[in-house]
Amino acid sequence: MIKIREVLLKKIAKIECADVEDIREGVRSGLIAVPENMKRKIARPFAVGKGMTTKINANFGLSPGYSSIDREMKKMDAAVAAGADALMDLSTGPLLGKMRKKILSSCPVPLGTVPAYELASVGKKKFISMKEDDFVSVIRKQAEEGVDFFTIHCGITQEIVYKLSEGSRTMNIVSRGGALLASWMLANRRENPFFSRFDDILDIAKKYNVVLSLGDSLRPGSISDATDHFQIRELLVLGDLQQKAVARGVQVIIEGPGHVPLDQIEANMTLQKSLCHGAPFYVLGPLVTDAAPGYDHIVGAIGGALAAWHGADFLCYVTPAEHLRLPDIEDVRQGVVASKIAAHAADIAKNIPSAIRRDREISKARAKRDWKKQFKLSLDPDIPAKIRKGSRPREEDVCTMCSEYCSIKIMEECLKSS
Amino acid sequence: MIKIREVLLKKIAKIECADVEDIREGVRSGLIAVPENMKRKIARPFAVGKGMTTKINANFGLSPGYSSIDREMKKMDAAVAAGADALMDLSTGPLLGKMRKKILSSCPVPLGTVPAYELASVGKKKFISMKEDDFVSVIRKQAEEGVDFFTIHCGITQEIVYKLSEGSRTMNIVSRGGALLASWMLANRRENPFFSRFDDILDIAKKYNVVLSLGDSLRPGSISDATDHFQIRELLVLGDLQQKAVARGVQVIIEGPGHVPLDQIEANMTLQKSLCHGAPFYVLGPLVTDAAPGYDHIVGAIGGALAAWHGADFLCYVTPAEHLRLPDIEDVRQGVVASKIAAHAADIAKNIPSAIRRDREISKARAKRDWKKQFKLSLDPDIPAKIRKGSRPREEDVCTMCSEYCSIKIMEECLKSS
Repeated sequence: MIKIREVLLKKIAKIECADVEDIREGVRSGLIAVPENMKRKIARPFAVGKGMTTKINANFGLSPGYSSIDREMKKMDAAVAAGADALMDLSTGPLLGKMRKKILSSCPVPLGTVPAYELASVGKKKFISMKEDDFVSVIRKQAEEGVDFFTIHCGITQEIVYKLSEGSRTMNIVSRGGALLASWMLANRRENPFFSRFDDILDIAKKYNVVLSLGDSLRPGSISDATDHFQIRELLVLGDLQQKAVARGVQVIIEGPGHVPLDQIEANMTLQKSLCHGAPFYVLGPLVTDAAPGYDHIVGAIGGALAAWHGADFLCYVTPAEHLRLPDIEDVRQGVVASKIAAHAADIAKNIPSAIRRDREISKARAKRDWKKQFKLSLDPDIPAKIRKGSRPREEDVCTMCSEYCSIKIMEECLKSS
Repeated sequence: MIKIREVLLKKIAKIECADVEDIREGVRSGLIAVPENMKRKIARPFAVGKGMTTKINANFGLSPGYSSIDREMKKMDAAVAAGADALMDLSTGPLLGKMRKKILSSCPVPLGTVPAYELASVGKKKFISMKEDDFVSVIRKQAEEGVDFFTIHCGITQEIVYKLSEGSRTMNIVSRGGALLASWMLANRRENPFFSRFDDILDIAKKYNVVLSLGDSLRPGSISDATDHFQIRELLVLGDLQQKAVARGVQVIIEGPGHVPLDQIEANMTLQKSLCHGAPFYVLGPLVTDAAPGYDHIVGAIGGALAAWHGADFLCYVTPAEHLRLPDIEDVRQGVVASKIAAHAADIAKNIPSAIRRDREISKARAKRDWKKQFKLSLDPDIPAKIRKGSRPREEDVCTMCSEYCSIKIMEECLKSS
């Protein structure tokens, strides 16, 4: 039995206009996840999965020498203010433990981490000499500290790594955690500890009610690698592990996509829902082209909208800095807004009443040229007001695009007088 | 017989890796359009339609009192530099004629206009008193000057306007030209001159080889109006007029969408291709939500990618200023890039070899961390270089996101040593 605070469930049910019992049943059967470590009290909780609105996650965290704890805390604030439902601290390096404690004491939304990064933070060479037990210990440590969800790269097995080294992919592994695990397996000639010790990990996750996000080490990093046998082989492993977790009363979500062309997105969603027994699907992007660095938040919004409409439940944001550098605060904000647009567009297509209502209301305000109401109902309320101020019309009820030739105004006038 | 310069066709065939005869046959049967007024020699020509890459258009033009000819010429340059395939001058007001002449003498890509705007530029009241002949004369005048394609709002009939005035739509008409025509019809109680005098318009278009872009006055301006009977009623009229044009040897494209939710985009494309006999489809957006003013370039990129994948041939850009103000130069640039991303993503999904090749090449450069080559192959080459410079890594072959933990580098190293 998965324990979730009653007050949390009620709060979520109210936001989602859903029934508490339906959410509870969804959690029990593995179709919905509600992240909250037993040690935490989350101010802005959520449920992700079947029947829920699409959620979005923003990554941040230290890259040693290129940021500071203060700066990353500001990114956290920016992401939360822009509407991120969850955050992942992807810090590496010596300050990672200090950073995590600071975040956990103030983060109003569920916080995720990638425990393998803590193991690797001692350096790539020392990481190779880690013992199997270390992989379990770091998970226990972070669970005790209160982390709400973990990315565990448990689907990349020795068999897959050996096959991968034959070299048919354009970009073999583009997951940082996945590459670390692969390097450990190749150097030690042993099975992935997150796979071989999965039962121990389940014990810990159960004890603290941590949601396990089963990581996709083999997500395609190039359009030409999309939906290939490596990706699907790993997904099959994840589907098996998901069943184990559900049987043990541990909450699980599945990670997926990366670079996937438009015409393969629906198939990817269908496949995950089938192979992973309806588990919530958490996707990066998908990025529908490799060729637009600097604009990957737009590329990811295209793929994310399509993915969420076809079944993805949780979108991991992509920022304009993707493939280029550690994102700055404005990159974080841009990434969150682009993901929120994708999630909202998908929620409309999924017929979620609150999403449809919002668009109807903003359109009614637009028809009346009620600018204040339009801005208030916008996904990012500050920006439209700022843009409009950049070119003020002489008449308050139009904008400088069409001015007196505003189609809405023309129609209003001519229908009145006809 | 539609006359297109042989040298133009050869140039286009080379760019598209297509056969000259196939393009010629496509033009003859109305499936492809090649805009170039007989009076012009276009430096960067294109073919739009069946089997061709997806094209994009950028709008610009004077809004009286809010811009200048110089400023609009700079927007033209910015749009062309960013990769717009076509431009539309949507100027209104007294300087519109002067502006058009200036553009026509220097615009390297096909130029479109909305002739009704010239008629309306004398003022909304005077516009109402225009005679039917005036609607034909302005088309003749602009065709003689060399305009390459016209938006003609010929599908909005009296019957539709009367039905519209019963008032079931959230946003009745959001097309400037459509609203003008409707106001004329309601005031004069006469049929739309662009509809009743369509044969005369065909004569002019044929004489100068102007492509007619049959405008969609009833495009939905709100998600709640999408794919409604007004929109489809007009599309049926446009389909009939398209057949007339093809029979007369006049090139035609059809205009469509506006605000359409994700789950209705494919149906809209299928419907247009069926009702308009495979004519090239030119769509605005589509915008998949009403609720993101300030980010409508992203909203339009989501819809545009999906639309182009499912059959749209020509995407009209949307800028971040949409619904808010006349776009500035940076808005224009952002709008063009977002549309190009959508077009390119669709071309990948449509299996266009040049699009697929580009992504494979940039991914190979990415795998080698060859930054210069990555930037060169990017859809907007300057921006990624600038972003990367904003946070310089100590080691040249990684970026500051993962630094020493770069997955690509880890894999390269561990596969080498294993």
